[in-house]
Amino acid sequence: MKHRLLPVSLLLCAVLGAFSLSAREDASVIPLPAPKTEGGKALMNVISQRRSARRFKSDEIPLKTLSSLLYAAWGISSPDGKRTIPTARNAQSLEVFVLFPSGCYKYDAKNNALVLSVRGDLRGYAFMRPEMPRSAPLVLVYVGKNTSMPAEFNHFHAGAAVQNVYLFCTAEGLSTVVCGGFDKKKMAEAMKLDEGHTVLYTQPVGFPAD
Amino acid sequence: MKHRLLPVSLLLCAVLGAFSLSAREDASVIPLPAPKTEGGKALMNVISQRRSARRFKSDEIPLKTLSSLLYAAWGISSPDGKRTIPTARNAQSLEVFVLFPSGCYKYDAKNNALVLSVRGDLRGYAFMRPEMPRSAPLVLVYVGKNTSMPAEFNHFHAGAAVQNVYLFCTAEGLSTVVCGGFDKKKMAEAMKLDEGHTVLYTQPVGFPAD
Repeated sequence: MKHRLLPVSLLLCAVLGAFSLSAREDASVIPLPAPKTEGGKALMNVISQRRSARRFKSDEIPLKTLSSLLYAAWGISSPDGKRTIPTARNAQSLEVFVLFPSGCYKYDAKNNALVLSVRGDLRGYAFMRPEMPRSAPLVLVYVGKNTSMPAEFNHFHAGAAVQNVYLFCTAEGLSTVVCGGFDKKKMAEAMKLDEGHTVLYTQPVGFPAD
Repeated sequence: MKHRLLPVSLLLCAVLGAFSLSAREDASVIPLPAPKTEGGKALMNVISQRRSARRFKSDEIPLKTLSSLLYAAWGISSPDGKRTIPTARNAQSLEVFVLFPSGCYKYDAKNNALVLSVRGDLRGYAFMRPEMPRSAPLVLVYVGKNTSMPAEFNHFHAGAAVQNVYLFCTAEGLSTVVCGGFDKKKMAEAMKLDEGHTVLYTQPVGFPAD
């Protein structure tokens, strides 16, 4: 029986892989399921309930949820390529990365996928203070690209994206916190960012620890 | 009859004043009605539908709506004084002003009121480019306060607040756009800001023009 079951289990892996935890282990591209672009809790409730939380379970976030979270942060929400947040003169000078234990992935909104950037666990670079969470299953990293506009505009863009993620997490029962006080140069080196790219903020996300 | 009607009309003004347009003409303090802290459209719908819009009717925004809008931007949403957006180390180094044709008012979240800061129409300072809207009935101004932390953090805070206002406007059928390319020093002078306070962004709000 074994030799007949093997191909079936391989096939199952291939079909389910993109939607399961194992895909985050070593895939160079993780296709994301379609994000949720409608529904969710009422806006004023989530605005009122938004809070920072620093204790996480290490349980992974389902890929469907992650896809919607990334869409909220930096998704393309219009046929003309406009995003879920405003950027100065529509320069779109932001990039969003996700750090998993297995590696650093860049969010490709156009193709709705995560693309491997650097292998290995870079989450330790994301936190300065000891009370910051090291157990979060993923950490978002916001990166700004140099433009002819003031560099501080990129911090504005990150603020808008981070806020959308806060609201999404509030609606979905996830915990999150934004971090700005870590060594951004060290993290940029570890992420092997190109010249003219700057690490702005990190934002761990996970299910709340009791 | 006149002398008997006069006190009644004065009383009516006093009772209705805080909730009517005339209160925005010359009051030094405009008490705001309680903001809406629950309800509204579903989060993912407003995140998907958020767009910048630059053409406004000059019709005034009802005070109840304005109160909820300011709450979304920078309201106090917790008994411990936490806000609707995160700030670095909870420094709360942001201030939100509202420019009406009659004057510049500071949002006092604690007392849920607008406090007159400077008389006169400062809206013209808020826009650099000619296509920017001069017809909006009000313009929000985000001001950062110096702290020991990097000044760029204030841009992050403004980004989060502006995004909440975008989402609120989307849910309420209002138009808005964020502006960063105007003379911020001139505006700070016109607003008579204290030392160590910096104008960050402006955000006109109004009903959409057809």
